[in-house]
Amino acid sequence: MSKNSSNIMALAPAAPNKRETVCIFGTGDFGRALGHKLIQSGYPVVFGSRSSHPSSLVPKDAEVLSHVEAAQKAAIIIIAIQRQHYSFLTSLADVLRGKVLVDISNNLKINQYPESNAEYLAQLVPGARVVKAFNTVSAWALQSGTLDASRQVFVCGDDAEAKKMVMDIVRALGLTPLDKGSLLAAQEIENYPLQLFPMWKFPIFLSLGLTVFFFIYCVVLNVIYPYVYEKKDFSFFIAISIPNQVCPVLALTLLGLVYLPGVLAAIIQLCRGTKYRRFPDWLDKWMLCRKQLGLVALAFACVHVLYTLVIPIRSFVRWRIGNQIISQVLSSNKTQPLDTSKAWISDSYLALGILGFFFFVLLGITSLPSVSNSVNWREFRFVQSKLGYLTLVLCTAHTLVYGGKWFLVPSSYKWYLPPIYMLSLIVPCAVLVVKFVLIFPCLDNPLTQIRQGWERNPRYSQ
Amino acid sequence: MSKNSSNIMALAPAAPNKRETVCIFGTGDFGRALGHKLIQSGYPVVFGSRSSHPSSLVPKDAEVLSHVEAAQKAAIIIIAIQRQHYSFLTSLADVLRGKVLVDISNNLKINQYPESNAEYLAQLVPGARVVKAFNTVSAWALQSGTLDASRQVFVCGDDAEAKKMVMDIVRALGLTPLDKGSLLAAQEIENYPLQLFPMWKFPIFLSLGLTVFFFIYCVVLNVIYPYVYEKKDFSFFIAISIPNQVCPVLALTLLGLVYLPGVLAAIIQLCRGTKYRRFPDWLDKWMLCRKQLGLVALAFACVHVLYTLVIPIRSFVRWRIGNQIISQVLSSNKTQPLDTSKAWISDSYLALGILGFFFFVLLGITSLPSVSNSVNWREFRFVQSKLGYLTLVLCTAHTLVYGGKWFLVPSSYKWYLPPIYMLSLIVPCAVLVVKFVLIFPCLDNPLTQIRQGWERNPRYSQ
Amino acid sequence: MSKNSSNIMALAPAAPNKRETVCIFGTGDFGRALGHKLIQSGYPVVFGSRSSHPSSLVPKDAEVLSHVEAAQKAAIIIIAIQRQHYSFLTSLADVLRGKVLVDISNNLKINQYPESNAEYLAQLVPGARVVKAFNTVSAWALQSGTLDASRQVFVCGDDAEAKKMVMDIVRALGLTPLDKGSLLAAQEIENYPLQLFPMWKFPIFLSLGLTVFFFIYCVVLNVIYPYVYEKKDFSFFIAISIPNQVCPVLALTLLGLVYLPGVLAAIIQLCRGTKYRRFPDWLDKWMLCRKQLGLVALAFACVHVLYTLVIPIRSFVRWRIGNQIISQVLSSNKTQPLDTSKAWISDSYLALGILGFFFFVLLGITSLPSVSNSVNWREFRFVQSKLGYLTLVLCTAHTLVYGGKWFLVPSSYKWYLPPIYMLSLIVPCAVLVVKFVLIFPCLDNPLTQIRQGWERNPRYSQ
Repeated sequence: MSKNSSNIMALAPAAPNKRETVCIFGTGDFGRALGHKLIQSGYPVVFGSRSSHPSSLVPKDAEVLSHVEAAQKAAIIIIAIQRQHYSFLTSLADVLRGKVLVDISNNLKINQYPESNAEYLAQLVPGARVVKAFNTVSAWALQSGTLDASRQVFVCGDDAEAKKMVMDIVRALGLTPLDKGSLLAAQEIENYPLQLFPMWKFPIFLSLGLTVFFFIYCVVLNVIYPYVYEKKDFSFFIAISIPNQVCPVLALTLLGLVYLPGVLAAIIQLCRGTKYRRFPDWLDKWMLCRKQLGLVALAFACVHVLYTLVIPIRSFVRWRIGNQIISQVLSSNKTQPLDTSKAWISDSYLALGILGFFFFVLLGITSLPSVSNSVNWREFRFVQSKLGYLTLVLCTAHTLVYGGKWFLVPSSYKWYLPPIYMLSLIVPCAVLVVKFVLIFPCLDNPLTQIRQGWERNPRYSQ
Repeated sequence: MSKNSSNIMALAPAAPNKRETVCIFGTGDFGRALGHKLIQSGYPVVFGSRSSHPSSLVPKDAEVLSHVEAAQKAAIIIIAIQRQHYSFLTSLADVLRGKVLVDISNNLKINQYPESNAEYLAQLVPGARVVKAFNTVSAWALQSGTLDASRQVFVCGDDAEAKKMVMDIVRALGLTPLDKGSLLAAQEIENYPLQLFPMWKFPIFLSLGLTVFFFIYCVVLNVIYPYVYEKKDFSFFIAISIPNQVCPVLALTLLGLVYLPGVLAAIIQLCRGTKYRRFPDWLDKWMLCRKQLGLVALAFACVHVLYTLVIPIRSFVRWRIGNQIISQVLSSNKTQPLDTSKAWISDSYLALGILGFFFFVLLGITSLPSVSNSVNWREFRFVQSKLGYLTLVLCTAHTLVYGGKWFLVPSSYKWYLPPIYMLSLIVPCAVLVVKFVLIFPCLDNPLTQIRQGWERNPRYSQ
Repeated sequence: MSKNSSNIMALAPAAPNKRETVCIFGTGDFGRALGHKLIQSGYPVVFGSRSSHPSSLVPKDAEVLSHVEAAQKAAIIIIAIQRQHYSFLTSLADVLRGKVLVDISNNLKINQYPESNAEYLAQLVPGARVVKAFNTVSAWALQSGTLDASRQVFVCGDDAEAKKMVMDIVRALGLTPLDKGSLLAAQEIENYPLQLFPMWKFPIFLSLGLTVFFFIYCVVLNVIYPYVYEKKDFSFFIAISIPNQVCPVLALTLLGLVYLPGVLAAIIQLCRGTKYRRFPDWLDKWMLCRKQLGLVALAFACVHVLYTLVIPIRSFVRWRIGNQIISQVLSSNKTQPLDTSKAWISDSYLALGILGFFFFVLLGITSLPSVSNSVNWREFRFVQSKLGYLTLVLCTAHTLVYGGKWFLVPSSYKWYLPPIYMLSLIVPCAVLVVKFVLIFPCLDNPLTQIRQGWERNPRYSQ
């Protein structure tokens, strides 16, 4: 019986002014939200439920029937049930034969089960055509209507026709389906919503590690050193002064690390004389997380800017400036002439920092998805490469001018340790020097040729 | 005659290298812009116009004919005419029979007419298949090409085939159609472009009300009180000092109000022992506008930051600091030692404020549509919940440290009124205390179970 | 032979659980990236290559065959070869007959060849159906998966069926195809990825020109003048003081230029008594780059804010304030009373500037593509027009209050030149005055009528 009804559903074309019925097993949050959305888009929806008296939260226009009755009414059945309750579906094998079963389930942990939920479902109901879909969309997002068409819904399955039917539903809901191939991809699709910023892990752990290192370095130089030698309590430097040294150092170092892999890749390509060989794995991974590294660097730069701008409001700074003026009055009893070179240095490093920060923020804005989607490849490269190097040059110059005069003063090396801003200059200066060398025509020309496909020792040509 | 031509159009497949002709009634702004775009996408376009000599602004590649002639040439007719001129279409009933009429009209006011324009059109020309579409897209957006594929075009209609034809045109123009169901949805679709930030109304009126209240409160305490008792004119506080007290108070209160409904919902669910009952209406509405409340709070926080950073530039502040130094010189004739505990307090609340503001801005960035679309549900919850509470804790601590020492000082209660920052602590502290209680396992475990579907008094199980 | 196989491919429906094979000529970066993505989406992929031993970088699941063999296996052949190597395709004319050839090539310069690459390909292989597509997508974007569905892929071609086949592939990859019509559009599509911010050229060159002019103007007044008359070296003003005069002047002038064309258009429409005549070309172009002008103005405003906020940190400013206090101590030996009117002016222009900047940033945020896509036309106009004029009024008031008292003081006109902020007021004040006049009902009513289609001398009515 069920077999026939299924065939009839699949073969008989829908009446011209009606969409095909969709069946949903389960009346939980997601089932109800999806049902609601489907009804809005003109699909007749029937819920399959164990209970005969439906919850008051089920959409009004939907029918609620037993599982068997509901399944008979539709060619597509959305399984909005948790995996551990799938087993009862085996008893419905007859009714489900030939139907399209849409697995929308998610797990609580990555790789919780040996096989994906969708593959498990396909084993349980071998006669059905299983499609994985919708698991990356949340009930909340469906209800609140915050999704726009740029939201991709991953779909996979072994049966192309079944997949097409599901993708049509996805499109009818105003979303964009993305075919991820056969049901083997289900494991990956099920893991996707359980990920927590996988691309950000390396940049964030790297920056946390560097933060701890530089923080301790600064505490030693700025709090412990004066306490040991001068018995002065500068512990309150921990709140603002030291973070304001650590943040710019991290911002500059991470910004240097964004451009370092590009320079390394150029050197490797020049040495090998071809671009048709894979880079080492670590370099590939590094290059893929440059955007995240850059954004973390920008975050440190933003905090540095805020810490710098509150300086004049700090109680300590007001006390110090007041005391300087008072000592001057008491000692000399006259005003001092302006030190023009000091004014030049102070204004220059502030101006360089402001311009560097401005271009840095521009880079950050162009890495917003909607902005980077609206520029073409040449524009994107112009911003990320040309403006990026300009930012690096400006920020490096900012640090050089700021610390410049102390490089050769022995007293700035407490306990033989260099001031922290000198450490921050290592990576960016190295990148800029190598990049400068690579600009020379004798290196730039072969590199350009290699990147256009030329090979020093050609293996084959297309 | 028209009947035949219509059928021929509908049945005869288009030549392989040509799209179907589209007819547009009306040569106004929108008709011309749409015609232009259709021609670009390879559709032959014919305009129907009363006038035989067409406007010079009509796209060159389009034909301009009388209404009857134009309608005969196409299966789809886009009605780019205002509703009050629809009546002449009744005279074309024969030609329009079986055609797809696309109603793109908008009204000037919400619910201006008893029935939607599309339903009115369907009544006027009963033989035609009316589809509502394109009314949410503006002529200007079509012309300037600022639309990308994430722009959804709402479509509704009673005839599925007609709707499909229109949706194909929408897709060919590079936009994404969203099926909103039958023609009954036309009223809602027509009201959509007339809305003015409906989700923002409550947060904005609430914050305006609170702003007025706190502003007057501050004026009384900071301007009127010193005028009455000390005859001092501090009226200029109205420009910066008082807004800079009101803004942080509003930012903190509104941020607390963002997290209050979540806490209330948890309490309600715990009491009821189930999640399968609707929340009270006011709580549902409150939860839906949390994002907007948060963004308004962020706006106040941004203004607070700017007001704080300009403090050292203010003429009044420079005068006060100068006078303090001068009095110190004149009275004591020596410098003062550093008050370390004062430095600690000053630096701590600044550092807490900066970090709180930083995470607040991060929250704001992740609520940009393109960013929130590119994270998965777990990441979105992590940011909005974990980072959100971190922000709330930091900002509350910022306020506590700022005002801390004055809580027990009677002189800070002018006219028995507490200083304004104490008022701002009420909501966030209440939220944080309840949230802290809810974290205890004896409450957290049942809550987690309830949210996974468990019921204390189960009505039915799926 | 090839003819037959082609027909078989085109006619025989694909097996239900398999997509059609796609052939890719060329194993370069883009060919491999596209092949990889196609395999992910379930397409069998076969590469055509001169070399029998394939590169190790070719996706594993793809077959690599000779060009002839590969072409026979698929109905769609993607030509991932540079234009200068196209000529060998003539030898494959038999195999390629009836096939869909997808031209994905780009040039190095705009209009490098007389005809587009796609048209050249169509001439070389007259029996094939050529479609232009994918050239706007980069290999890097395909690989890194940073594309979402809002990314439009431009498609054009003379054969509608072939175009549809290609557009289906585009959709299967999760992207959105945009039909640009016949193969004549290929030239435009090929030029698109070679453009470098075409809409930004005019605003950026205009602002660069104005920057140079105002910078020299300021150097003359602030550095050369005191050097000539007072022998004082203020050359360090070039770093911060002068940029901080130039930036606000440019921000205000450019913001005025954003609203000037709208005012001019209103005057033209009032004079002509109709909206059905084209504006002059320069006005049309001006109106199209208003968004870019506004964003450049916002950039200058941001830099101005940063330059202003670092003022108290500058060495020069600290020296000046310290000296003022010291002179006061030495000369008068007592504190000064507060100058309330000075405090009022200082606080007012700071407050006006902060509010103006806040609304300016709001305007900037709403012009982000994803934000402007999620508001409707009425909301967009409300923000851009109402909030925009509010910003203009606030920023103009900020400048007026700042410079107010010096307008009538002759000593502020060094060398008979007015201070620079007076120049910045010309455009915005002109715009505001005209806009104010246009609000009067005697002008506003006819203008509203004209914009709704009314004509003083009607030519024709619809």
